[in-house]
Amino acid sequence: MPQYLSTLDPDFETAFTALLSAKREDSPDVDEVVQAIIADVRARGDAALIELTARFDGLELTQDSLRISAQEIDEAATQVSSEDRAALELAAERIRAYHVRQLPENAMWTDPDGASLGWRWTPVQAAGLYVPGGTAAYPSSVLMNAVPAKAAGVERLAVTVPAPGGRLNPLVLLACRIAGVDEVYRVGGAQAIAALAYGTETIAPVDKITGPGNAWVAAAKRRVFGKVGIDMIAGPSEILVIADAQNDPDWIALDLLSQAEHDESAQAILITDDESFGRAVEQALEARLQGLMRRDIAAASWRDFGAVIIVRDMEEAAALSDRIAPEHLEICCAETEAVAAKVRHAGAIFLGPMTPEAAGDYISGPNHVLPTARSARFSSGLSVLDFLKRTTLSRLTPGALAALGPAAERLAQAEGLEAHGLALRARLDRLNGPEAG
Amino acid sequence: MPQYLSTLDPDFETAFTALLSAKREDSPDVDEVVQAIIADVRARGDAALIELTARFDGLELTQDSLRISAQEIDEAATQVSSEDRAALELAAERIRAYHVRQLPENAMWTDPDGASLGWRWTPVQAAGLYVPGGTAAYPSSVLMNAVPAKAAGVERLAVTVPAPGGRLNPLVLLACRIAGVDEVYRVGGAQAIAALAYGTETIAPVDKITGPGNAWVAAAKRRVFGKVGIDMIAGPSEILVIADAQNDPDWIALDLLSQAEHDESAQAILITDDESFGRAVEQALEARLQGLMRRDIAAASWRDFGAVIIVRDMEEAAALSDRIAPEHLEICCAETEAVAAKVRHAGAIFLGPMTPEAAGDYISGPNHVLPTARSARFSSGLSVLDFLKRTTLSRLTPGALAALGPAAERLAQAEGLEAHGLALRARLDRLNGPEAG
Repeated sequence: MPQYLSTLDPDFETAFTALLSAKREDSPDVDEVVQAIIADVRARGDAALIELTARFDGLELTQDSLRISAQEIDEAATQVSSEDRAALELAAERIRAYHVRQLPENAMWTDPDGASLGWRWTPVQAAGLYVPGGTAAYPSSVLMNAVPAKAAGVERLAVTVPAPGGRLNPLVLLACRIAGVDEVYRVGGAQAIAALAYGTETIAPVDKITGPGNAWVAAAKRRVFGKVGIDMIAGPSEILVIADAQNDPDWIALDLLSQAEHDESAQAILITDDESFGRAVEQALEARLQGLMRRDIAAASWRDFGAVIIVRDMEEAAALSDRIAPEHLEICCAETEAVAAKVRHAGAIFLGPMTPEAAGDYISGPNHVLPTARSARFSSGLSVLDFLKRTTLSRLTPGALAALGPAAERLAQAEGLEAHGLALRARLDRLNGPEAG
Repeated sequence: MPQYLSTLDPDFETAFTALLSAKREDSPDVDEVVQAIIADVRARGDAALIELTARFDGLELTQDSLRISAQEIDEAATQVSSEDRAALELAAERIRAYHVRQLPENAMWTDPDGASLGWRWTPVQAAGLYVPGGTAAYPSSVLMNAVPAKAAGVERLAVTVPAPGGRLNPLVLLACRIAGVDEVYRVGGAQAIAALAYGTETIAPVDKITGPGNAWVAAAKRRVFGKVGIDMIAGPSEILVIADAQNDPDWIALDLLSQAEHDESAQAILITDDESFGRAVEQALEARLQGLMRRDIAAASWRDFGAVIIVRDMEEAAALSDRIAPEHLEICCAETEAVAAKVRHAGAIFLGPMTPEAAGDYISGPNHVLPTARSARFSSGLSVLDFLKRTTLSRLTPGALAALGPAAERLAQAEGLEAHGLALRARLDRLNGPEAG
């Protein structure tokens, strides 16, 4: 049974603060192991990858079989039903249509002083995408990472996916094909991250690594950060639903469960202005829970981290939501748009009863890789910007340098950076000298 | 004496690879000390800050004197000459004018299926800016961090700056005032980062921390990352100048020196298509070096990490530049624009002989906080985007859900996420049911 909190309770603030700061995840300390794995891959390349894959994935590889061939991907694709293929293709098309709109514009202008200023965006040249193996191998996540990378213009996109015992998910391989992934390797764990960051004989190094993974993968990403770029380190998933009594309790219950079923550490919270609606959602959730395949996971998440918060009004709901800074926020109430306009910190907002988060996870178009653990206070979901970087541009005319240079020289002197000042002074003297006219 | 490389040399590739991978910085391993400092500040708040400041900065503080008062800032401002003040104000104004152009637009559109999609940018609510003490206390860096934060709409901007022995740089305090900084605290080191991330009785926690610092500060930023956002961890500064023989060797020499004087680990590289021009720059540099106040630092940088690379043509220069992925790139040649158009990986490009990097460091407008150590391959300089985050928005109509829901349901089933599928199915059944019409 989840916690019930009410803003009318005198101890609400204490209980809410405890809910916010509840530690939901205990990451094992694998940093030393990961450090050794990375060092091994750097030192021995493919040989280390092959040995580690035999040890951790029970899979014997050779240099020739590290990479999954186009033929294998073709064969995997034939195992996917035409309906599943069509669904993947529709999802990819919609994700692409959303993300190309994020492509930022270059700019260049000349200001009144004669300084031409601007910037230019260019894609990361090579990116690596980590795809987890086993039950967490989600083809939708392949699309959510690979489609924005390709939309950004990444030339070379390499995927690593572990194949425990040789098993691969045909839908994952088909998603790679549909998204335009260039290379797929059957390696996983910290060794895959090391290979992407530093390169081996078979896997050329990339410039940026994205994608979810377990504690070993996360620790490896932290370690290689700096050598390459990485995306965020995602924590367990979360949903906050703000709903009034006009909703079907069963729908809201299912939306809460679709986060709870991800992970025992996932968190599903309902905020409502009607306590009896809150109770009705809880009952509907318990009823749905019984029949779920992933019942044990969802029940543990709901029991340990679920919450129902009763508020006086939706204004209060929006304020609490900002303190939670949820990864996913569903708003289903009479004043949906007004409440949404008040919210400042959320990874994604789903508006109205016909926009279940499950639609957003797959097909709406926005990215489902979103900031967790209250990091929506300072970070954003994955986008094409994660695969682009910006170069600033400037060009001064002699007139602009004459106008601006003396102030720059003064600041350089104030900071004790003499050569900076001289670099300006040498030019200013020329401009002011006999040759200037 | 710097290295000379030529692309005509048979061993060029080996020498160039060695230059690229030269380790310029040995960071002391301070992680354990930093971990203890952070734990102490979390546990004891202001008391820990006061004790650590006495120990490391030789400065006795009380809870009342942790914060630098408005009156102290006023008094510091009176110590700054009107010329320096005018230079700071001009710089702030130009940095602001550049950065407000970076403010991204919100978007919302409805696609043919009836899905309304988009995103909204909102500022980080509270940001912290670390300003180093001592000789590295650069008022220009205060502007380069604080002005974009305020342009992004950050409500609360707190600065921490160590005051060893009580000494503070009046220009730094004035820069805080000009940039609209809301709070300034006289603490530094890992303890300042801990206070910004976790809060103490006197310093409220922030959501994002930016700004340069020494090894302790960098290690602390890595540790608090996740709890708060951080900017990049900057390495030693770099400049690459691409110049032909039409340039004044003295100007180019001074531009190289204005990086070399920053730090013994800084790196200054010249690429030219004319060896005798390369020699002339070297001679000019040696001549200028003798008179510099920071001669020892600049000489060590130039000796240990400086290089002159002779290329066949400027096409080759652009290709090498992309492999270096320099923080700062100056291009001064007959085909400046054409060469610049070929470059993909650089933090900032300075075009033409009247645009010395020193102008960009202070007054041009673009940010001087830029990616170092080849990270321009995957990251960008500081911008207003570092102080904003994006929330995605979606709203499906019943028609949109009817069109898209079945594909999402199919993908949910393929991924074994039953509740996701049911959340869609419950709604689709209603739409298809007797009430649907």
